[in-house]
Amino acid sequence: MPECTTTDVIEESTAEGKVRMIYDDIKQTLGIDFIPNMYKAMALNPDYLELTWKRVQAIMSKEGKLDKNTKDIIALTVSIMSGCNYCIDIYNGAVSHNGLDEEAITEIYAIIDIYSGLNRFNIARQTKKDEKPWFGCGS
Amino acid sequence: MPECTTTDVIEESTAEGKVRMIYDDIKQTLGIDFIPNMYKAMALNPDYLELTWKRVQAIMSKEGKLDKNTKDIIALTVSIMSGCNYCIDIYNGAVSHNGLDEEAITEIYAIIDIYSGLNRFNIARQTKKDEKPWFGCGS
Amino acid sequence: MPECTTTDVIEESTAEGKVRMIYDDIKQTLGIDFIPNMYKAMALNPDYLELTWKRVQAIMSKEGKLDKNTKDIIALTVSIMSGCNYCIDIYNGAVSHNGLDEEAITEIYAIIDIYSGLNRFNIARQTKKDEKPWFGCGS
Amino acid sequence: MPECTTTDVIEESTAEGKVRMIYDDIKQTLGIDFIPNMYKAMALNPDYLELTWKRVQAIMSKEGKLDKNTKDIIALTVSIMSGCNYCIDIYNGAVSHNGLDEEAITEIYAIIDIYSGLNRFNIARQTKKDEKPWFGCGS
Amino acid sequence: MPECTTTDVIEESTAEGKVRMIYDDIKQTLGIDFIPNMYKAMALNPDYLELTWKRVQAIMSKEGKLDKNTKDIIALTVSIMSGCNYCIDIYNGAVSHNGLDEEAITEIYAIIDIYSGLNRFNIARQTKKDEKPWFGCGS
Amino acid sequence: MPECTTTDVIEESTAEGKVRMIYDDIKQTLGIDFIPNMYKAMALNPDYLELTWKRVQAIMSKEGKLDKNTKDIIALTVSIMSGCNYCIDIYNGAVSHNGLDEEAITEIYAIIDIYSGLNRFNIARQTKKDEKPWFGCGS
Repeated sequence: MPECTTTDVIEESTAEGKVRMIYDDIKQTLGIDFIPNMYKAMALNPDYLELTWKRVQAIMSKEGKLDKNTKDIIALTVSIMSGCNYCIDIYNGAVSHNGLDEEAITEIYAIIDIYSGLNRFNIARQTKKDEKPWFGCGS
Repeated sequence: MPECTTTDVIEESTAEGKVRMIYDDIKQTLGIDFIPNMYKAMALNPDYLELTWKRVQAIMSKEGKLDKNTKDIIALTVSIMSGCNYCIDIYNGAVSHNGLDEEAITEIYAIIDIYSGLNRFNIARQTKKDEKPWFGCGS
Repeated sequence: MPECTTTDVIEESTAEGKVRMIYDDIKQTLGIDFIPNMYKAMALNPDYLELTWKRVQAIMSKEGKLDKNTKDIIALTVSIMSGCNYCIDIYNGAVSHNGLDEEAITEIYAIIDIYSGLNRFNIARQTKKDEKPWFGCGS
Repeated sequence: MPECTTTDVIEESTAEGKVRMIYDDIKQTLGIDFIPNMYKAMALNPDYLELTWKRVQAIMSKEGKLDKNTKDIIALTVSIMSGCNYCIDIYNGAVSHNGLDEEAITEIYAIIDIYSGLNRFNIARQTKKDEKPWFGCGS
Repeated sequence: MPECTTTDVIEESTAEGKVRMIYDDIKQTLGIDFIPNMYKAMALNPDYLELTWKRVQAIMSKEGKLDKNTKDIIALTVSIMSGCNYCIDIYNGAVSHNGLDEEAITEIYAIIDIYSGLNRFNIARQTKKDEKPWFGCGS
Repeated sequence: MPECTTTDVIEESTAEGKVRMIYDDIKQTLGIDFIPNMYKAMALNPDYLELTWKRVQAIMSKEGKLDKNTKDIIALTVSIMSGCNYCIDIYNGAVSHNGLDEEAITEIYAIIDIYSGLNRFNIARQTKKDEKPWFGCGS
């Protein structure tokens, strides 16, 4: 019988080369003094870590069309729809850090509740596209 | 063998009583001259239509903590995560009507792509909560 | 750096006005002497709580076309498909309270297993609608 | 470059041996004079077809704890949650054939809408189990 | 008020008849000296247990077109997409037992991350089928 | 009322700079003479296109632990679980191009069917981790 693998992580103390450089960049960019567990797991494949981190940076940190808080709200919404508790915790922290209070966060949850329900009704009914757009433009 | 039912809708021309009143409110509130297919289907159960519409109004139209465009972006994100084409079309129209151009909408899609992927990685790894929060607060 | 928000709940002891009235209605309607955690969280947005509770009542408690146990079975099935443990616990309790024994509940799970699998096969195959209906009516 | 495969189906006219026997059983059991597209696709792996069909029969057709219409309602609910249009059509036809009219079917959709929404709220909040059960029993 | 049911399992020590025979087959086939919790729960409906186990055997254990490790990788991928921790643990164990090391398992996760993201982008965009196939055959 | 945006794509004939270079790389790497619709849509955000394409290349095209066909099978499985028809078509084409015939592809579908079902059963039951591993290693 073969030996069995414990899927592990790359700790900061043993990180070398490309992984060490990315770890330093993560800490500096996020302004934290530790490496999140997610990235320590991803580091088992350094190319995957590098290109994922670069892509996150390019979309989330660079000046774009949407402001930082709107981006974090989208990330929170996606995390809730995927049912990922680790991710929900992080992006709840993020939008709170951005200044949203508990009423605003509850408003986000309420909107997700409403549209999760309505989406499912339209999937059930296989609702056909309306003949005219709702918003004065060809939606 | 029993007769079979075609699940149908309540057309404007035959709407009466509570349904007619809600139809009028929908047209006035949304500023359109037709009833969306979704609400015409829902009208088969007038209480369901009434309380759903009231709830949508209370969260989406009333002054709250989030601005209208942020709310529509959340609705669009939920619709994409649910895979509801009817809903995606409507909220693409909404955020476009709110002023987002194609670059901004592509940015929304890019964020959804990134976090759908990372969510799944963390579900795969069953990533444990980090010992310290990312954002200087107990996320 | 901004202060961070802990998303909180409205306890019974501090509930006032509209929230207190709904809390009383929840306890009376469900025949329990406490407020479920779900509603205590929702109370941070009193309009959301009120209209959600009214809608739940209108569909689940009012005389309709389906009996109470069938409604609870649908709620249980939806909760299992969404992967919401809190909700699964509640509706397992409900259908058990309605009189279903463990064999009947296992039968529900078996049906969900079968159709989750077959659904996925048909999504994989993108199966086309059959030329004739299965049940003697234009399904 | 290798030839490419078109994933195909086993038509009735070419079915032989085990597949032919199952096809005959499907038509007789369902009381139809054709083989649904789903089973014609599955027949490419005769063991898979046989054991799936047997399992469907054992749960859906045999006398159990739940009546036929309740079973079909569960199958419809699962199909809606999975977003499988082929399956939604079939089980809409089934519950209609069982005698549910359009109001009853809309009631099913309303319940699915409500709980899809509430499930998502509880996933967002990671709601903790209530200290006491809702239904007088340890749910 | 009715008594409430605790959904339970059939322990090995009380298994009889058909359930006992299947339990013995499970232990022998998997080469283990205990019955997994999943099958002990399923045994509350012996027909369901029997036909599920037969179907699993027919697809996973019999000589087919795909090798054992590829089959286990598919089962792991499905488990991650469904968000089932119990199942993820089992199939992580399986592919590790088959000889995949932590780098290979991370590669699986990376592929799931990438395609979960791209899938969502294409759902968002409702991307139309390309006019020509990518792989030199009519996909 | 604002003008409305039609979310568009960057055609090959108008691609410039970074987008043109990536388009050329896509065609050469995939061995095709057109740009898939997915990438033409992504090109509205050139950084997103570039880093997504690089990441896809790093995981799917570079020598790794898993062979090309296994990677494509994972991509197909993810696409089926996400319900993305565009993606299912592409990866059905890919595994067919790799040499899988219709029996082998049906075997993939059968495994997905089985585990989608069993996953849901374990989510329904909230099955606890077995005390001992199934495969002789601490899964």
